[in-house]
Amino acid sequence: MWGGRFAAGPDAIMEAINASIGFDRRLAAQDIAGSRAHAAMLGATGILDASDVAAIREGLVTVLSEIEAGSFAFRADLEDIHMNVENRLRALIGDAAGRLHTARSRNDQVATDFRLWVRDQCDAGIDGLRALQRALLDQAEAGADWVMPGFTHLQTAQPVTWGHHMMAYVEMLGRDAGRLADARARMNECPLGAAALAGTGFAIDRDMTARALGFERPCANSLDAVSDRDFALEFLAAASICAMHLSRLAEELVIWSSAQFRFVTLSDRFSTGSSIMPQKKNPDAAELIRAKIGRIVGANVALLTVMKGLPLAYSKDMQEDKEQVFDAADTLMLALAAMTGMVADMTADRAALAAAAGAGFSTATDLADWLVREANLPFRDAHHVTGTLVALAEAKGCDLPDLTLDDMRGVHPAITSGVFDVLGVENSVASRMSYGGTAPARVREQIAVWKDRLG
Amino acid sequence: MWGGRFAAGPDAIMEAINASIGFDRRLAAQDIAGSRAHAAMLGATGILDASDVAAIREGLVTVLSEIEAGSFAFRADLEDIHMNVENRLRALIGDAAGRLHTARSRNDQVATDFRLWVRDQCDAGIDGLRALQRALLDQAEAGADWVMPGFTHLQTAQPVTWGHHMMAYVEMLGRDAGRLADARARMNECPLGAAALAGTGFAIDRDMTARALGFERPCANSLDAVSDRDFALEFLAAASICAMHLSRLAEELVIWSSAQFRFVTLSDRFSTGSSIMPQKKNPDAAELIRAKIGRIVGANVALLTVMKGLPLAYSKDMQEDKEQVFDAADTLMLALAAMTGMVADMTADRAALAAAAGAGFSTATDLADWLVREANLPFRDAHHVTGTLVALAEAKGCDLPDLTLDDMRGVHPAITSGVFDVLGVENSVASRMSYGGTAPARVREQIAVWKDRLG
Amino acid sequence: MWGGRFAAGPDAIMEAINASIGFDRRLAAQDIAGSRAHAAMLGATGILDASDVAAIREGLVTVLSEIEAGSFAFRADLEDIHMNVENRLRALIGDAAGRLHTARSRNDQVATDFRLWVRDQCDAGIDGLRALQRALLDQAEAGADWVMPGFTHLQTAQPVTWGHHMMAYVEMLGRDAGRLADARARMNECPLGAAALAGTGFAIDRDMTARALGFERPCANSLDAVSDRDFALEFLAAASICAMHLSRLAEELVIWSSAQFRFVTLSDRFSTGSSIMPQKKNPDAAELIRAKIGRIVGANVALLTVMKGLPLAYSKDMQEDKEQVFDAADTLMLALAAMTGMVADMTADRAALAAAAGAGFSTATDLADWLVREANLPFRDAHHVTGTLVALAEAKGCDLPDLTLDDMRGVHPAITSGVFDVLGVENSVASRMSYGGTAPARVREQIAVWKDRLG
Amino acid sequence: MWGGRFAAGPDAIMEAINASIGFDRRLAAQDIAGSRAHAAMLGATGILDASDVAAIREGLVTVLSEIEAGSFAFRADLEDIHMNVENRLRALIGDAAGRLHTARSRNDQVATDFRLWVRDQCDAGIDGLRALQRALLDQAEAGADWVMPGFTHLQTAQPVTWGHHMMAYVEMLGRDAGRLADARARMNECPLGAAALAGTGFAIDRDMTARALGFERPCANSLDAVSDRDFALEFLAAASICAMHLSRLAEELVIWSSAQFRFVTLSDRFSTGSSIMPQKKNPDAAELIRAKIGRIVGANVALLTVMKGLPLAYSKDMQEDKEQVFDAADTLMLALAAMTGMVADMTADRAALAAAAGAGFSTATDLADWLVREANLPFRDAHHVTGTLVALAEAKGCDLPDLTLDDMRGVHPAITSGVFDVLGVENSVASRMSYGGTAPARVREQIAVWKDRLG
Repeated sequence: MWGGRFAAGPDAIMEAINASIGFDRRLAAQDIAGSRAHAAMLGATGILDASDVAAIREGLVTVLSEIEAGSFAFRADLEDIHMNVENRLRALIGDAAGRLHTARSRNDQVATDFRLWVRDQCDAGIDGLRALQRALLDQAEAGADWVMPGFTHLQTAQPVTWGHHMMAYVEMLGRDAGRLADARARMNECPLGAAALAGTGFAIDRDMTARALGFERPCANSLDAVSDRDFALEFLAAASICAMHLSRLAEELVIWSSAQFRFVTLSDRFSTGSSIMPQKKNPDAAELIRAKIGRIVGANVALLTVMKGLPLAYSKDMQEDKEQVFDAADTLMLALAAMTGMVADMTADRAALAAAAGAGFSTATDLADWLVREANLPFRDAHHVTGTLVALAEAKGCDLPDLTLDDMRGVHPAITSGVFDVLGVENSVASRMSYGGTAPARVREQIAVWKDRLG
Repeated sequence: MWGGRFAAGPDAIMEAINASIGFDRRLAAQDIAGSRAHAAMLGATGILDASDVAAIREGLVTVLSEIEAGSFAFRADLEDIHMNVENRLRALIGDAAGRLHTARSRNDQVATDFRLWVRDQCDAGIDGLRALQRALLDQAEAGADWVMPGFTHLQTAQPVTWGHHMMAYVEMLGRDAGRLADARARMNECPLGAAALAGTGFAIDRDMTARALGFERPCANSLDAVSDRDFALEFLAAASICAMHLSRLAEELVIWSSAQFRFVTLSDRFSTGSSIMPQKKNPDAAELIRAKIGRIVGANVALLTVMKGLPLAYSKDMQEDKEQVFDAADTLMLALAAMTGMVADMTADRAALAAAAGAGFSTATDLADWLVREANLPFRDAHHVTGTLVALAEAKGCDLPDLTLDDMRGVHPAITSGVFDVLGVENSVASRMSYGGTAPARVREQIAVWKDRLG
Repeated sequence: MWGGRFAAGPDAIMEAINASIGFDRRLAAQDIAGSRAHAAMLGATGILDASDVAAIREGLVTVLSEIEAGSFAFRADLEDIHMNVENRLRALIGDAAGRLHTARSRNDQVATDFRLWVRDQCDAGIDGLRALQRALLDQAEAGADWVMPGFTHLQTAQPVTWGHHMMAYVEMLGRDAGRLADARARMNECPLGAAALAGTGFAIDRDMTARALGFERPCANSLDAVSDRDFALEFLAAASICAMHLSRLAEELVIWSSAQFRFVTLSDRFSTGSSIMPQKKNPDAAELIRAKIGRIVGANVALLTVMKGLPLAYSKDMQEDKEQVFDAADTLMLALAAMTGMVADMTADRAALAAAAGAGFSTATDLADWLVREANLPFRDAHHVTGTLVALAEAKGCDLPDLTLDDMRGVHPAITSGVFDVLGVENSVASRMSYGGTAPARVREQIAVWKDRLG
Repeated sequence: MWGGRFAAGPDAIMEAINASIGFDRRLAAQDIAGSRAHAAMLGATGILDASDVAAIREGLVTVLSEIEAGSFAFRADLEDIHMNVENRLRALIGDAAGRLHTARSRNDQVATDFRLWVRDQCDAGIDGLRALQRALLDQAEAGADWVMPGFTHLQTAQPVTWGHHMMAYVEMLGRDAGRLADARARMNECPLGAAALAGTGFAIDRDMTARALGFERPCANSLDAVSDRDFALEFLAAASICAMHLSRLAEELVIWSSAQFRFVTLSDRFSTGSSIMPQKKNPDAAELIRAKIGRIVGANVALLTVMKGLPLAYSKDMQEDKEQVFDAADTLMLALAAMTGMVADMTADRAALAAAAGAGFSTATDLADWLVREANLPFRDAHHVTGTLVALAEAKGCDLPDLTLDDMRGVHPAITSGVFDVLGVENSVASRMSYGGTAPARVREQIAVWKDRLG
């Protein structure tokens, strides 16, 4: 394989650290697609004979079918997917196989394969996000007007609606899909033809191979084409942010499933029991999704660290790109699927949500706003008055609506009985009609927008 | 400040961990711009009197001028920039100041301020990238046809041109700018009006404030608007990838400046001496730029870690967003500026580049390609023949062009004297005319494209 | 400053990226201590005259007092703390100042200064950990026998005691202190005398300077002494793990402070209110401590990334070490102090803990264990029987002790009335007498051990 | 498996995200060792009958032999290694298998298994480090007095010896081994008997199981025992720092192997060729080792992120601990082995090292030191004079020893012909006799110390 240059073969350690076939076999389909496009182009440009091209094409079809059938014998001593495929091709079609590598190198070959793979993951990620958005939309639609506590600092802040809360994640995931779409568009240039690093003297047609593989255009600089992995990093960055969003929803599901909250019941399908505590119903899937951000961010850090300070063009360090991206992509798709299933299956406890929404002086802000609107107090003063009333209610062991008008007027004389209209949770929620607000009418508006968007 | 609720004030530790005025004062201009837009809208919608709005506007102008003049007394006990500004406003204009906070909260206020700040950094980053691209273009233009060794694994691989190498970085930085532009477009939605988390019952006009602050539209979900920081993470991710690119160029400059390479001479302006070794001229700026990826990736990890698993909506954890982004943005801008200066000032040693380009059997691939084209060998066979010839030359202590025709024909009889035409470095480079290849004509093409693109 | 070598001075960008005086002024005390030890040694070995040594010593005392008094004028054009101090020393004592740098370099000087600083942080971290452990011990002692739910997956699992839960953190923090102590011992070697990288030809006494600065011994390899920063990384690693522990306790405090849990009340001193929701009492300090892991892990990643792939010996990249460690150390100390205050101040709600401990079939395991012990069922069978009984109780809307003996015997005939003895929470807890178990007697044992250990 | 509690079984997604048997089968030997120790203890304390204990012991021996023989059928629906082993045990020995889980839980079981595994990795890491240190010692001994350039900023600074450079890494790796030894000692406490989280009511003997498994003592707090993973993080932190050291040596090998440096020749065993450039001999192993820091630091970040903010006790998130540590440990061992092989095989080019050592005014510091010692100049003045002489030599195109005495005296009249004694590289190196310095005598001293230490 190394030409006539090497006296000694690599030993076991070297094979263990150097061979990539253990993981880059996942690029088999991409590798063969790239080779088919390359061979067709070599034929069209007259660099190869038609008969060689035909033999290569048929041989590659056979190799792919063997791999798909599981009958292909991968060999670690052939190091990587490229050499494994080519070696088998040579066994199948003889010398013509050796002509396939004309005007290319493993450097542009692997860069092409890997881009094709990552591009597919962008699409898969977008699909996964859309599915999860749909599950959230269903939840939002069912509970567009169910009241629940809106938290800040995990303290009851103001009542919101279940639908509004679900739609917050729809927005986040929408941006996640946008990031993947942008990454896909940016990476959609074809490295094939960059050869080892400098381009080639053969009169190849790079537009033809780019087109055949669905790329927008060929990469404009051959050194860059084989040297950079920013497309993989951009995918990992988008995946990291998405995993962060998933970790937040997962955390909420874990907290909401606790005996103390009881806001939601997860389905048995996404829960497990305990080997020693038979009564337990554990939100394992939610916890695992929450944890998955770790390995995705870890992969992101890993590849950034690998790429730090590498001189151009290709260095073997870059072989470390694939396992990180494979694992992060698999993890992201699995986390999206599990979250979709969990959201689709879960049951919100409308009564528990409503009960919690009404507790904890949750309409204090509405009271403060009432003082601004009706009694014309500056907001900061209204805030102070409200604080005093909350302290009074707390001292009396009751909630705000339970205070008497006299109690209230004792704190500020401008308060009238009209104030009681705003202290109910339903009123509070319905009143928040500002664009993007939690009023059920507003939430339904956004549901409609997103249904339309997702088709 | 906390209304009537708190008996005890925060002590020194709490102030130290809780107060953000030490860093969020950098948001003063954004905070005041946001408040001005908000007040104008409150006036236009009749929520505030025109006289209050006018007082607020004038008061804010005064506050900003005091801050810009350095005469503003920031107070840690007022915790953050929002309360510092409002407190001063109250001192200047009295009760009307208290009305400014109608229909908003610090949650949407800080989200707006910080988005405005990050949006500016996207623009600044793009500007910095453009400047560096121009410096690289100048280098590329000057040396579009200077030959140098192209490396893989830091081993001489094939000759390339200086211009081609410079243009590889122009491509990378172009994608970096694209990432910042995409991030900017995605984050360009206005949180103002989301209030604490649920929207507001006041009949505000969110389109008006969004427009006034240059946002494309208001955020469509108030919970999302105050809860997420993905825009900051996307900026950090783009900055991390860009820092990776800079670290690679910096590493090359360090290696190229060594006595062993001597490919470039950095200017005195971006080098330093040693306190003990007077002969040293150290590439300090290049080393520092190489290192800067550390703190930018660190900031990225830090904020992802902070955001992991936070339930909606605002949690105080999110206050940790700003210092990370401030530092990463400052670092990125400084690194871009320093790299721009260094690239503009540096002098490539054309003769040293050419000498190195010709060493190390760098046209072996050209020989292999010749065997494919002229002797019709399959590439893999040609590769083997070439390897044997390299081994022969190495054994004789000479380079490939120094072998005799007999030497060559001893290895493969199909070799003719025509082979010597492709063994020269200049020929090799000129022949690589595939799109994106290193041929000077191709390099000049790309230079023209980018000059046009950068305007 | 650069000797006669440089024609052009560094401009503003270079100063901005290159000068470290903005942050390394924090090393002033260490730098002067190092210089004093070095000067004393140069005197003792006869390399410098006694009069020069005396002048240097007095001059350094003056410089330090100026810095401590805040009257020292730091100059960015002098780049770093070393040159600022030396420059001022020259102004104070003239030519003798120039002799101080005999047989040393800034490389060993900064390595020494920074080690001294990090060594102090190990001590400070241990002190901070001890204080927090004491606060936890106080909580544990007060509530050694208060029952509370022990959670797994945030689901009620088995009852435990408050004291046991507090002591879990005492154990974790004890290991954190152990890591800092080990790091301190490992880093306690003196780089001074390594000079630039190769040692020196002057007949210096490295043991003397090492001893004077409290080091165990001099570093045994001069290249290593100026090249490595593993001591800083080890500190950051220990700090990262400690911050992880703090984030867990902080998360618990946030959850426990929620209206749904109400397990603890945090003091006003470590809580804040809301600008718009007057009733809120937010666990800000807990949230901020939870978040601090972000910047500490970020610093760890940053410095690992910086050090990756640096050839020996000193590279300027290493100047990035200090800001990361400064920030991480400050953050750790602040987080420890805030957590100590919060734990010391917090009030556990014994009744709420007890009520929660008894809910959710929390003694199901005790039932299963009873079946093993008394009815001689294999554990797995006992587990299955218990699960069926829990399902029965759930269906009836009651807890396990509320089932009748007939209910129970209907599931398994071997059950007798003795089973009711193990279904109470207090019994359950008291029975877990295995070493390290939650029984109050066991908890008090561990409290005694730790009180003794902490002195 | 879940007792009578669950109606619906987990579907494919849940199995994919939840099952750990795909990776935790690596803990089989540890799991069975733990079970054997537990069963023996249950027998000794009379909790189980001797006959049950005997059956369990024999059954476990059979299970282990099946696993080692590769004939064991792992089942994903049984989720993890613990249930797979127990299930098979039940098939082999019937009901007695169900008694094995008395007084334990999967929580303490997995914590024990994983600690045993990580403890082994500490030992393996130390062994790997020792082997690499020995290879470096051999290199150091062979070239204790070979001169080479010592670099700072990759610029020639002062001459050092090859042996000295090799010994710098011996020191670093020695600290790495120390970190692993400290981590091992700290983690060497036995979680077994902590049960699910609270300990157990069975009268178990935790000292007995701890002793049987080679632990120093049982964990003192059962909640802590099942909740924390700091031992894994400490291993990852030590591995990260070690990987950093390896990345630096790897970077040097890559640079030293370049055509421009030619300081070392790597063996064919640890190099590879190029598929298109037959003359290439690429330092692939060195590049891959350099890159490996990425995945190790990534694993460290991943697990820290996973553990952030987890409430006690066990959460399913913690299942993410194993793959990260498995991969990092495998990577570290492989990198150490490959580096050991590469260092053992490599050949330093003594002549090339010596030639480079003498170039670049590398003895300028010696000249400056001479001026201090012989002409009594303050160091800063000597530095200035030397800088002027270097500039003069540079202008004349020669090195320092090639200047005439007149040239020198023209710069400073105190210079005498004695100065030429210190300008030679060999003299320079021999003179640096300070402890830890580069003088061959000093290097040999340290080699002897380390040979003794490594035994």
